[in-house]
Amino acid sequence: MLEQINKPQDIRKFGKKALPKLASEIRAFLIEKVGKTGGHLASNLGIVELTLALHSCFDFDKDKIVWDVGHQSYVHKILTGRQKDFDKLRQQDGLSGFPKSNESKYDFFDTGHASTSVSAALGLAKARDLSREDYDVIAVIGDGALTGGLAYEGLNNAGRSNTKLTVILNDNEMSISENVGAMSKYLNKLRTAPAYIGAKKEVNKVLRGIPLVGSPLADIIEKSKDSFKYAIIDGAFFDELGFTYIGPVDGHNISDMAEVFKQIKKLNCPVLLHVLTKKGKGYRFAEESPEKFHGIDSFDPSTGTALAQKPLQYSAVFGSSITRLARKNDKIVAVSAAMSAATGLTEFSTAFPHRFFDVGIAEGHAVTFAAGLAKSGYIPVVTVYSSFFQRAYDQILHDVCIQKLPVILAIDRAGIVGADGETHQGLFDLSFLGQMPNMTILAPKNGKELAKMLEFAVKLGAPAAIRYPRAEASVLFENTDNAIVYGKSEQLVKGNDIAIVSVGTMLDNCSKACDLLAKDCCSPSLFNARFVKPVDEDLIRSFKDYSIVYIVEDNVLIGGYGSAVLQKANELRVTSKIRLLGFPDEFVLQGSREQCFKRYGLDANSICNLIRTETGR
Amino acid sequence: MLEQINKPQDIRKFGKKALPKLASEIRAFLIEKVGKTGGHLASNLGIVELTLALHSCFDFDKDKIVWDVGHQSYVHKILTGRQKDFDKLRQQDGLSGFPKSNESKYDFFDTGHASTSVSAALGLAKARDLSREDYDVIAVIGDGALTGGLAYEGLNNAGRSNTKLTVILNDNEMSISENVGAMSKYLNKLRTAPAYIGAKKEVNKVLRGIPLVGSPLADIIEKSKDSFKYAIIDGAFFDELGFTYIGPVDGHNISDMAEVFKQIKKLNCPVLLHVLTKKGKGYRFAEESPEKFHGIDSFDPSTGTALAQKPLQYSAVFGSSITRLARKNDKIVAVSAAMSAATGLTEFSTAFPHRFFDVGIAEGHAVTFAAGLAKSGYIPVVTVYSSFFQRAYDQILHDVCIQKLPVILAIDRAGIVGADGETHQGLFDLSFLGQMPNMTILAPKNGKELAKMLEFAVKLGAPAAIRYPRAEASVLFENTDNAIVYGKSEQLVKGNDIAIVSVGTMLDNCSKACDLLAKDCCSPSLFNARFVKPVDEDLIRSFKDYSIVYIVEDNVLIGGYGSAVLQKANELRVTSKIRLLGFPDEFVLQGSREQCFKRYGLDANSICNLIRTETGR
Repeated sequence: MLEQINKPQDIRKFGKKALPKLASEIRAFLIEKVGKTGGHLASNLGIVELTLALHSCFDFDKDKIVWDVGHQSYVHKILTGRQKDFDKLRQQDGLSGFPKSNESKYDFFDTGHASTSVSAALGLAKARDLSREDYDVIAVIGDGALTGGLAYEGLNNAGRSNTKLTVILNDNEMSISENVGAMSKYLNKLRTAPAYIGAKKEVNKVLRGIPLVGSPLADIIEKSKDSFKYAIIDGAFFDELGFTYIGPVDGHNISDMAEVFKQIKKLNCPVLLHVLTKKGKGYRFAEESPEKFHGIDSFDPSTGTALAQKPLQYSAVFGSSITRLARKNDKIVAVSAAMSAATGLTEFSTAFPHRFFDVGIAEGHAVTFAAGLAKSGYIPVVTVYSSFFQRAYDQILHDVCIQKLPVILAIDRAGIVGADGETHQGLFDLSFLGQMPNMTILAPKNGKELAKMLEFAVKLGAPAAIRYPRAEASVLFENTDNAIVYGKSEQLVKGNDIAIVSVGTMLDNCSKACDLLAKDCCSPSLFNARFVKPVDEDLIRSFKDYSIVYIVEDNVLIGGYGSAVLQKANELRVTSKIRLLGFPDEFVLQGSREQCFKRYGLDANSICNLIRTETGR
Repeated sequence: MLEQINKPQDIRKFGKKALPKLASEIRAFLIEKVGKTGGHLASNLGIVELTLALHSCFDFDKDKIVWDVGHQSYVHKILTGRQKDFDKLRQQDGLSGFPKSNESKYDFFDTGHASTSVSAALGLAKARDLSREDYDVIAVIGDGALTGGLAYEGLNNAGRSNTKLTVILNDNEMSISENVGAMSKYLNKLRTAPAYIGAKKEVNKVLRGIPLVGSPLADIIEKSKDSFKYAIIDGAFFDELGFTYIGPVDGHNISDMAEVFKQIKKLNCPVLLHVLTKKGKGYRFAEESPEKFHGIDSFDPSTGTALAQKPLQYSAVFGSSITRLARKNDKIVAVSAAMSAATGLTEFSTAFPHRFFDVGIAEGHAVTFAAGLAKSGYIPVVTVYSSFFQRAYDQILHDVCIQKLPVILAIDRAGIVGADGETHQGLFDLSFLGQMPNMTILAPKNGKELAKMLEFAVKLGAPAAIRYPRAEASVLFENTDNAIVYGKSEQLVKGNDIAIVSVGTMLDNCSKACDLLAKDCCSPSLFNARFVKPVDEDLIRSFKDYSIVYIVEDNVLIGGYGSAVLQKANELRVTSKIRLLGFPDEFVLQGSREQCFKRYGLDANSICNLIRTETGR
């Protein structure tokens, strides 16, 4: 059946009864394809039936859907003519793992970060109302993303909007790891409430009050007690927010969902439909280990095991280092925003359960909460991906930096993240943290230096950020053992004529470039910046010893390390030639780290060739 | 009585019965002092009794309080030894209008922006638990700030924390202007529910379930029905978030509140106490016009009228301009985050009620909501203060810029804001927006240019930001009428030898500096940057015509306009001497705009003297 689907209308060719079979085919397709390319498997396996039900009831040539986060949109992509592109899923020039409006008109609104869907969908719905048009607007949001304050702001605003808007809460009982916070406890209460208890009474209360369609809907629900696997129970939280709460509905029963959708289409108000799904559904290994199969590299479908052994990652080095430090210093606590395993905090959370706080998808709260801990004498290490720290800009500036509190930001996935593409690239952190007074920014050249920098940051007694990429921990220059001195860079290779200053893990490429250049009898000096902020004034004064200095960073050039160096050089009246290498003023699309570096001239060969060309060697 | 209060313990000298009289004295003091200095009057008049009740029941030598936003902390400041400092309230080197831990140990945690208190207080509470200490931690948050997603993230996390924490909801039925969203509707339901309805039943349900103290508390409440002006009603929303909801309580009855505090101290869980207060309480003019008396300049206490007529502000120019444009273009819509009057949107909201959206204190949502509107063909103008846009960093980058949506950011209060101090200075927007791909940033030199830039932005069809200060709209160079051309600066004065490039309203000081220099026979060329992003390459190429070029901006130098110019000059191999004038890498404390400019060498005299010194004239 799957091969006959090229556009959304195609699934209507099959009878409703055939859809469960189609669901099986889609699952097999997903497991096979993602097994080869890697990707977000578990969430897509969980949403197969919901997506089929949506496509069988709505017309996405006019109706609009916003997928929160968006990594669960694979099934939607399959149904909207992009089946053939799955061989290049998440690869350079290939299919995106997220909705992209420039990829398909059926991806109406781009997503990537969590909790944006309700706000965006409300905007679409209000625009529809202003234009006096008539179509459905749907947001699909997971229970994990509901922890994010933005989702609440959206619900709060939508609930009083009198606008036709459907929010589908895709509740799989976990965001990426186990969910936390009162909301998840509340949802659990809704989930586990015995079905049909007081259904009649509640149906009357909730539905019969809705003009025109409420009573018919209530009739249907009452009549179909045997087929409907849901009850209308205590959705007070959402009711108070102005939503008509319906659910929970079995998210793996297409005909039940289709029946509910038909009725919801008649409602003219904000509706929250609570759908229960199972992450990893239909693939034993993913059902058993949904976190492992959340975002996964290529694997063997028959065993569920990864095809390649992952070498030691920076995240793992961070995790063991912070745990080691915490054994010696009981003031160290760790804060995670729903990413404890991925950021390497599993060991810490096991060793120090009372000193570990997973606050859920709530980066702003994570930082302000950490500020409170710091104010009372603790040293919180907030571990968040670079692109998600963007959501805590004000909390870092206003709650941490103004009070100069010793909060450590452990910035994982800094620089190029690869397959997740432009929404997830960690290319802005040096810029947005660099402009904050009282902030110290460190970037380690290898795993060993990450450990040393953590130790340094713990002793600093002021805001500090350490940024490292989603990559294998480098072992390059592991035997150099210069102590970390506040604000000081280190010289790794003494050369002459020209110099390269590398930021963090760009050292791998810079060092290789030096080797290439050395073959042609040009031996550059090689520096490791170590501190992105403050910049090392002595280093800048030493620029006069070189004909040209190349600064290499994996951050946008605007406001990055090179920019700070230029500014300090200008202030110190250093007039040496300085060349900035980094990412230009554009969003960097998906591709492997190596491909992205090459695309922007930041791989060893490109750096070498640039220097050769300019120096004429 | 008031003159006998120098430390928190002093109010205990008076019997409880004397406290209402003290409240009256405090009100008279506030009206007199704020009448002279200006400040946040209405919210402080509303919180007199609550603050007295808190100080009579808690010991802030050990207990800790976090004031959300913090502009309602004047009474707390009076009671903690700072009465004598009110003559210099909000002035340079004077008393801050917000809690400052470096001002008093009783201001334990600094605030300024809304919705941070629950997160910070939870951090303090968890730190207390880890240290096995025993004291109370209290957050006082207004109903307006409850709209902010950060508050929800904090509540959600706290509600499942099993931590002793008291959140006092100071409900005055409005944030700054009338409140919006479902939450305010819900609170209104709680407020207006007939007192005592079902109280007995609810008391049993809610309170008797709490071990040890629940039953005694319930007894007291039942017994004192006549004196207590509150009931325990449907607090389901907060209950579901894991809080024990108590209220609403009359926030102007000190003894009632004291009684409840006594009981709450015995509870060992997160408690939300709902307190009803009246903004402006006890001062007729403020009760009648609480919005006018929210933040007010000096006024005559006997009449409530401002002492000085306010000249035409940039906000007003913005408001009339956007309304004029909206009459011609029905795609223009406006989005405000609880600041519609202050940002000049009153006229627009009256003229186009359906095209005006006040989303409450929810800046992140405001931007993503606008992205949704833009995606469906509208041109949303999001009007927010510069320092509050910091809270929407990720939404601007991720939801607007990646999709290159035509959302216009109208950035009010950019640059120096004056009396509100470091938490409110708009000194970072050029930096944090400058690093975002696809963003265009404009800064008008005068009111007329603000109108022209708005018209330009409406036609741009891509993300644009226009930033202007909290200041009188300049009329300088109003008669120059150069068309706005994308990415192009304008030359206002043709001089020689040196050049000054001014950003936005810094032109006032730059122009005066030119006049001063002209007296000494040095006539600089004067440029108005107009576009902060993209920077004008032709302008930079023209730098070769000058011995030195001075760039003047009211933003931090790191990542600002000057930084972008240096970077572009470096890229274009322009080696002219460029000097950057702007704010250094530190937080800028309160003072008038003029004082702040002088402090950092950005007033006309300082600019003139700097140039004189360097050029030797």
